[in-house]
Parts: sequence; C-alpha cells; structure tokens
Amino acid sequence: MTAETTETTGNTRTTTGFRTVTAYAAERPNGPLVRTTVRRRALGTRDVAIDVHFTGICHTDLHQVAEDWGAGTFPMVPGHEIAGVVSEVGPDVTRWKVGDRVGVGCFVDSCRDCANCRAGLEQYCTGEGGTVWTYNSTGHDGLTTYGGYSTGLVVDEAYVLRIPDALPLDAAAPLLCAGVTVYSPLAHWGAGPGRRVAVIGLGGLGHLGVKLAHALGAEVTVLSRSTRKREDALRLGADDHRATTDPATFTELAGRFDLILNTVSADLDLTAYLGLLRVDGTLVQLGAPEKPVRVSAGALLDGRRSLAGSQVGGLPETQEMLDFCAAQGVTAEIELVGADRIDEAFRRLAEGDVRYRFVIDASTI
Amino acid sequence: MTAETTETTGNTRTTTGFRTVTAYAAERPNGPLVRTTVRRRALGTRDVAIDVHFTGICHTDLHQVAEDWGAGTFPMVPGHEIAGVVSEVGPDVTRWKVGDRVGVGCFVDSCRDCANCRAGLEQYCTGEGGTVWTYNSTGHDGLTTYGGYSTGLVVDEAYVLRIPDALPLDAAAPLLCAGVTVYSPLAHWGAGPGRRVAVIGLGGLGHLGVKLAHALGAEVTVLSRSTRKREDALRLGADDHRATTDPATFTELAGRFDLILNTVSADLDLTAYLGLLRVDGTLVQLGAPEKPVRVSAGALLDGRRSLAGSQVGGLPETQEMLDFCAAQGVTAEIELVGADRIDEAFRRLAEGDVRYRFVIDASTI
Repeated sequence: MTAETTETTGNTRTTTGFRTVTAYAAERPNGPLVRTTVRRRALGTRDVAIDVHFTGICHTDLHQVAEDWGAGTFPMVPGHEIAGVVSEVGPDVTRWKVGDRVGVGCFVDSCRDCANCRAGLEQYCTGEGGTVWTYNSTGHDGLTTYGGYSTGLVVDEAYVLRIPDALPLDAAAPLLCAGVTVYSPLAHWGAGPGRRVAVIGLGGLGHLGVKLAHALGAEVTVLSRSTRKREDALRLGADDHRATTDPATFTELAGRFDLILNTVSADLDLTAYLGLLRVDGTLVQLGAPEKPVRVSAGALLDGRRSLAGSQVGGLPETQEMLDFCAAQGVTAEIELVGADRIDEAFRRLAEGDVRYRFVIDASTI
Repeated sequence: MTAETTETTGNTRTTTGFRTVTAYAAERPNGPLVRTTVRRRALGTRDVAIDVHFTGICHTDLHQVAEDWGAGTFPMVPGHEIAGVVSEVGPDVTRWKVGDRVGVGCFVDSCRDCANCRAGLEQYCTGEGGTVWTYNSTGHDGLTTYGGYSTGLVVDEAYVLRIPDALPLDAAAPLLCAGVTVYSPLAHWGAGPGRRVAVIGLGGLGHLGVKLAHALGAEVTVLSRSTRKREDALRLGADDHRATTDPATFTELAGRFDLILNTVSADLDLTAYLGLLRVDGTLVQLGAPEKPVRVSAGALLDGRRSLAGSQVGGLPETQEMLDFCAAQGVTAEIELVGADRIDEAFRRLAEGDVRYRFVIDASTI
C-alpha cells in the first residue's frame, strides 16, 4: 500500500490524502476482473491499515458484479472475506498494533447509535447512512467502498476482527462471511446438544454449516440433490446425508428437525422442507433467490413453524465465531487461486465446481 | 339430549349405545344448514355430556362446508366455539360435575402420548390418529365427529375447558377458537409491556387480537384496508389504526413492530408487511389462504425476520386464556342469531358483515 499523503489533525480524519493499492476490479457489469489500482482513504486517527494476505470469493461477489441485486458502482472491487495483517495504525487506535492478524467481513462501518448497532447487530443498522458494506457501498465519508480483491485496505478499528493464532489466514478468510452467515443462525436458534439441524446444500456456506453445527454439538443432516457429496458430508461432521431427489427423504424425515439452514439460492419447494420441521422449528433462508419464495401457509400453521432469514452476523458474534473456530479447529476447506484465475474461479463457482471455497492469494495481486 | 342406551363396564366405553341430539347440518358440500338429528356416542366412563347453550360461527365453518380445504364428510355439523353446561358425567369423571359451565374448542381428542400432547400442544398431535377435530374428523372410536351446531355433545373430560363465572356464556363462546387463536401467538411471541403489536384485519379474530394484545400490555396498531372501523379499533383498545390502502402506512411504520398477527386470509403483499417488523420481528399467519404465500427472501434476511404460522392453542393455554379473559373482562363482541338464521349469518360472514362474531343461540336449535 502506497501512502500518498496522510494528514491527521486531532480527531479529524483527513479526506484530502489518499493511498493507492493494487486491486482486481470489474470495470463494468459482468466485466472480467482486471488488475488496476484504487485509492484508499488516508489513515484516520482511528483507522487501521491492513495488508491483505487472503480473500475468499463469495457467491455475493458474482451477484454484485452481475448487478443481480441492483445497479452497482464500477469499477467494483469485490471481496468481503478478508484476512491479513495490520501494517499501520492511526494515532488514536487502541485495539490493534502493527503485526496483528486480523480479518474484515461484510461491513466496514455503521451508525453505531441505533438500537441494532448498540445490540451488536451492525448488519441491520437502521441509523443514518446504515450499514456500510465492504464494497459497492458508500461510506459515511461519501466514498465508494472497495473490497478485499486488493493488496491493502483502510478500516476503522472497531470494524476489524481478530484472527486467533490457531487459525491459518487462508482457511480463515471464508469464515468472515460464509462462516458467520451459518454460525449466527445456528447460535441464534440454539443449535447444540439434543438439537437436530439440517443443512440444505453442501457448498461454501453448507460445508461450514455442517462443521459448525457439529462442533456446537447438534445432530447434523445434509440435504442435497444427489448422493455425490455424501462421503464428504460425513467427513465434515454430518451424521447423515439424504438426497432430496428421493421422495422418501421427505416422508422419512417428516417432523424431524429443530432447525434447517437453507444455503441454496435456487427456487426450492420450501413447503416440502417445512414439513421436515418439528413443532416450533425454523427454516432459515440464508440466500436470496431472485424470485419471491413461496410456501403453503398450512405448512407454517401446522406445527407453529417459521420461515426466517438471517444475514451474516454482527461484530461481537463474528469475533465469537472466530474464537469458537480456533478452539474447535474449524476452518473452511479451500482451493487457493492466484489473482489471474479469478474469472475462472467465478465461472467454476457459478457451476458449483469447488470444494468448498475459492480463496485468492493476495500476494499474486 | 336423549340417551338411547348407555352401557358402561369398568373402564370400557361402550360404543353400542348412542344418544340422539338435534343439530343443524349441511347435508352436502355447500348445502344449506338444515335442522336434523345426529347421534352422539354413549357416555363413556370418562365422558362428559354437555348441554350446548351457545356456539360461535367461525370462518372455518364456511370453509369446511364448502370443502375449501379438502373433501368433507356429510352430513356435517359445524361448530367449534362451544359454550354450555355439564348435564351428565361418566362414573370415572373427576374434573367436572353436573352444572359446571364449560367450553369445547377445536378438538376433542388426541393421542395424549406424543411429545406435543405431553407438552400441552394437542393441536399439533403427531401420535396415532392425530388430533381429533371437533367436527368433520374421525374420532379414535372410528366415528365421525359432529360439532356444536347442536343441542348437546359428549366429550372426554380432558378436552373440556372451564368457563369462569365472570364470563357470559354467549360472549365467551368465540374465545374457544378465535380467542385462543390470537392469544396463543401473542403469548408465544411475548406480547406485553414495551412490545409493539400490529393486527392485520379487524374481524372475528382481529377484534379479539386487539383486546387481548391490549390487555397483555402491548401497544396495538390495527392495519386494515380502510378507515371505516377506526373508531371501533380505538374503542376495542387499539392505540392506532392505519389504512393499508395508504402507501404512507408502509413507510411511516417501517421497522416498528415486534409482532404482526395476520388474521386475513386474502392474498396480501406480505413482503410489504414484513418491512414493518423490527429486527427479530415475526409476522404470524393465522389463516390459510388457498394460494401459497409469497415473500421476498430479502425481506426476511434484512432484520432476521420470521414468517410463522400458528393454529389455535393447546388445552392448558386455552384454559389460561379463558382465565385471563375473566380476570381482564375480555369477551367477544357478538351478534346473537337464532338457528334459522345460520345461512344468512354464513353469507354475511363471507362478506365481512358482522361486528364481530356471530353466535348461535342453541336454545333455538
């Protein structure tokens, strides 16, 4: 990261100086990811500069570059599963020092004052400016945010997570989004001993869902289309694996689960999956299909079942998840790629051809 | 109620003797309700015979007679909001004596042994035979059940509720279905002081939802199409009333409610209503529209919101609700009709033309 000018006066963060970093960006919607440079804001008094070591490739990155969820700002530098090392700290930074192993997830700022921020649910910030997402978002300084497909970034110290020494940075990177996206609903809906959890889909999210639900002590069943990944599911910690193409799955497992995590964005027959829940069970949608989801109201009424959604996790919970992963030895299963292979990784991810998460080696950027 | 023969030997319930009661029945799908007689089983050792005094007309009765939810058994005697007085008890009955003021709700038996029955959630019975509904269902004795549009019924003592003296039998009858249908989700999702509850629709269910949520100490807002019932809503205990035809309702109340009860079976834009929930808020569907309900997954993800369903309430909760209503002076607002006006009441109910619940005076049957 090249610092151009850094001007800090008291508590005031300068916005006149910038620092330039190398990055991979899509220059237009659906464009290829190309090597370029972007400017980071000058280090504010409470900012931390981070040398990025590894960045996971999330399905969100594909959606954002393709503008599936709305117009994007280009050039767009994706990446919100960022693991690296602190390279510089602003004068008022208290939590971090140079050399600390740190992570940045899906957001880099929020209002800090609304009820949700105060409850540690910054991802649901309802205050002025709302949650500032790590890329393709607008910071409270008015600048477009750029993500982790880059050599360095500048983040307010409060939005930085500690990556415990027990976790390798490459396999820890996907925990910052995929990991907390499954951990948060597992924790919120009480997955643990005596509870039965099903995970729909064994991909980037699903494989971490299995590992974490198992580590939390729950009985875990993977529900996926075919039996192709059965051995993998069991190896990752699942107690059972059932093919959803087999109608017997839906009769034999009826009323079985306390919690189902749906990691699949495809248009599933959720009414059938609701039938697998016991009374007061919850099916949690983690991805957002383009079309509305449809369920029979009867499947909700019969057994006081819930269809819920959950979006990543707040800062305290993300740290809790990282510490839990370190204690339990949970990391993502990754395929490391050089930056010149990001486009190939995007194509393969779209086809589900990865076991189970691509991570970019940022030294190749 | 005319007892024909009653044979009781030890614990064995005789099924050879029957008793005949006068009833109003639909003799065919969508048929008019006509005066007839049906047979009740002979009084078993643990059965209670009840002289019906009043029976509420529930929207379910229209759906069942019309076979909206599947094939029915005819002749069909609807009615599952039954208030009356014990007229006779079997030799092993311990809870009731002749003259007791009692009610019967939506179900009259269940397996008593599954986890749900043991938890007092008999309406979600998953044991053999399942929940035996009060009418258009098959009892564990193999006989079709007939509901409360009749002069008397015979029910196992365990499925009978006490109607406290403070509640008039006519205005208490609708509590047995409509009352507990709204009370149960209010209690389950913690409506009380400091919580904001919205009730969609001000009909039979909705008006009791307002009264009960208010009595529980929650702030209550009614959401209905027009402002026509605004004064009524406020009189019943609502703090606010907003018209859903006014788009401002959905912007001004965004993120406001902890709990929304949807008492309307029409095809609403539930995504818009989900936007009215705060983080971790729940929209509970109480009716079952014929078409699947559709929601944007994004509206669930953004704020960890839930779309849930709830179906009446179990026996302990129904009794708790009746006791709460007696303590708080909550009853249904009713229009009493003679049995010869049931068809007219059905037509008016279908048009929403009742404030707020029709109750049949069973002395006219």
